[in-house]
Amino acid sequence: MELQISPLAVTLPALPPLAGVRLGAVEAGIRYRNRTDLVMLELAAGTTAAGVFTTNRCPGAPVDWCRAALKGGRARAVVVNAGNANVFTGRVGRDACAATAAAAAELVGCPAKQVMVASTGVIGEVLAVDRLTAALPGLHAALSEDGWEAAARGIMTTDTFPKAATRTARIGGAEVRITGIAKGSGMIAPDMATMLCFIATDAKIPAPALDALLRRGVGGSFNCTTVDSDTSTSDTVLLFATGQAKHPRVPAEGGRMLAGFAAALDDLLLDLALQVIRDGEGATKLVRIDVTGATTARSAKRIAMAVANSPLVKTAIAGEDANWGRIVMAVGKAGEPADRDRLSVAVGGVWMAKDGGVVPGYDETPVVAHMKGREIAIAVDLGLGRGKATAWTCDLTHGYIDINGSYRS
Amino acid sequence: MELQISPLAVTLPALPPLAGVRLGAVEAGIRYRNRTDLVMLELAAGTTAAGVFTTNRCPGAPVDWCRAALKGGRARAVVVNAGNANVFTGRVGRDACAATAAAAAELVGCPAKQVMVASTGVIGEVLAVDRLTAALPGLHAALSEDGWEAAARGIMTTDTFPKAATRTARIGGAEVRITGIAKGSGMIAPDMATMLCFIATDAKIPAPALDALLRRGVGGSFNCTTVDSDTSTSDTVLLFATGQAKHPRVPAEGGRMLAGFAAALDDLLLDLALQVIRDGEGATKLVRIDVTGATTARSAKRIAMAVANSPLVKTAIAGEDANWGRIVMAVGKAGEPADRDRLSVAVGGVWMAKDGGVVPGYDETPVVAHMKGREIAIAVDLGLGRGKATAWTCDLTHGYIDINGSYRS
Repeated sequence: MELQISPLAVTLPALPPLAGVRLGAVEAGIRYRNRTDLVMLELAAGTTAAGVFTTNRCPGAPVDWCRAALKGGRARAVVVNAGNANVFTGRVGRDACAATAAAAAELVGCPAKQVMVASTGVIGEVLAVDRLTAALPGLHAALSEDGWEAAARGIMTTDTFPKAATRTARIGGAEVRITGIAKGSGMIAPDMATMLCFIATDAKIPAPALDALLRRGVGGSFNCTTVDSDTSTSDTVLLFATGQAKHPRVPAEGGRMLAGFAAALDDLLLDLALQVIRDGEGATKLVRIDVTGATTARSAKRIAMAVANSPLVKTAIAGEDANWGRIVMAVGKAGEPADRDRLSVAVGGVWMAKDGGVVPGYDETPVVAHMKGREIAIAVDLGLGRGKATAWTCDLTHGYIDINGSYRS
Repeated sequence: MELQISPLAVTLPALPPLAGVRLGAVEAGIRYRNRTDLVMLELAAGTTAAGVFTTNRCPGAPVDWCRAALKGGRARAVVVNAGNANVFTGRVGRDACAATAAAAAELVGCPAKQVMVASTGVIGEVLAVDRLTAALPGLHAALSEDGWEAAARGIMTTDTFPKAATRTARIGGAEVRITGIAKGSGMIAPDMATMLCFIATDAKIPAPALDALLRRGVGGSFNCTTVDSDTSTSDTVLLFATGQAKHPRVPAEGGRMLAGFAAALDDLLLDLALQVIRDGEGATKLVRIDVTGATTARSAKRIAMAVANSPLVKTAIAGEDANWGRIVMAVGKAGEPADRDRLSVAVGGVWMAKDGGVVPGYDETPVVAHMKGREIAIAVDLGLGRGKATAWTCDLTHGYIDINGSYRS
């Protein structure tokens, strides 16, 4: 099936080299033909690492591998394949991870436990690990500092455009860079998605501080987004610090000197998360949902996600219908404190419903115009407290059915 | 938009009169043209009543009205309109319920609090209550014992076929009848749906016993079904006992003499719930999900509903793809205890995945044939305990997008 590029696609930014990272992609023929499907990153000696993974109770073998390997807080390489998720593949799946890591470790000259592995694609089919390990030496020999775009393309599955972002920040006066790539387009829900994301910085940051930064950043980005409410078995976000930049020493607990870095990282994570939503399967509109006035921030987030996950809200948006009644329904189904008679709903900045009823004589013209656009803004005020949260989603269209009703065929 | 009749539609059964119920439908022109949209049931003096309603925190005004009115445990009439849900309509919505009940009460000769009201259709638009009350006297004058089919048709919205069921049971040796009608096709999720259901029996059952029977029955039927995970603001199931049949006195607490009646009621509720799923918006396949081996029954139900609500499972079924990998994903995303390496999945009775991996050399031929059928059976065994549950859903197709992307236009 030929996938058309999402109308919400953004252009790949320029991705300059990042000291301590060499990467690239190759055609290993694992599942796809005539496209790259195997990606490798080699990281400088001394690189620290942190990761956040799916909450799915049936995770793929690569997730288990990375969770265990990350205990050391160090990484020298990442191997990623697209086309086969290596999930629910039993013992052979675990063996495939070990064989991949061993092959990469030999090429790089490091312990196997310093190799991270990730896989994305079909669940339940045995990974052709022989093809993968056969392709690794050639891939390794061709790694370069300029391979970011190739890597971003090589990890795609149903993605229609490659996803990357880069930022700079200062630590103790010295400039450092953060660059990340991501893939994902369906099976996207909070606590992540069939979403892989690999980020590197040339800063020198101890693993515990790196871990804290990543967890906080993912909470405000990937975990506030949803395409279809389905939570993948493979979601993985890995963050590496190569330590090649010159700046004052960062303590293990991180702290205030990382404030600027944390802000840049948060911004980069949100950029990548929204690129994933922009490539949501079949998406034609990017939807932002702001909830205010909830009893708590946690309650606000649940309400925002209930709206973001509602098929009826999402199909209404696809139909360019500002159907605030369905928004009220979705708020109510969240099961969180809500008082129908204090609830207000706005679309495109126009309050259509307030205090439990339609706003008499509100001007529908700007709302109709807003609904025809590519970016839709929904606001819900509960009128109960100070809890607020934001979620992002996309519309639900025929394209989603097309893609997912015939994915394996 | 012209809706085609669901390929899963079932034929309306013969609906004989039920002593103590007269009913009918009329064109009130509330929203639709050239079809009935207003239904009334008149119930014999002494009728007891019980109800179960949506868990949505933003319920419609009619739900509030019925909850309050049912405290008396008695009912003499029901008025239902289709086309406008009278939800999020503020004070005018509450006034509309009171005006409807008052008008019906005057016709029947009872207190307004013995009139139940229900509305289904668009949310957030003011109900044309004047048209409704203007049509009531003519409707009341034409009520008859033979009006069951007319009533089943008059409460439809996006439904493509009318839904009814009838059963007989014995109480203390005497035969009694139970007859019910239902509507619903989207916004269908556990703890009900845009689902209205009205059931009557000629048995004489005290209100507390009736309430207990209904709650138990709904738990095993409507609350185990889902079309799209969206929970309506209007869900209502009402059960009336007209007391016209001659049988020994039933105590307030019900008890063993109602065992046969309870079984017949449960069967009728499940029949109606599955008719709603068969009319799920865009549905082409009815899907049953049996979960066994969970740690508890509650856990099994959550897992079954996670599978039933997964857009990726539902689109795979639409594509006739026995994609058990997506079933594994959905089991894992439920957040309930699950051990990937003990998990087994069957489709159409064939175990495709067992003990954490694909079953080597399983015969795909019967599975492929099964997926082409109208009724799909999925079984999941967790291998952990004795908890089990069943859920029902339908597939997710282009038809769902068609219907919901243009509902208001």
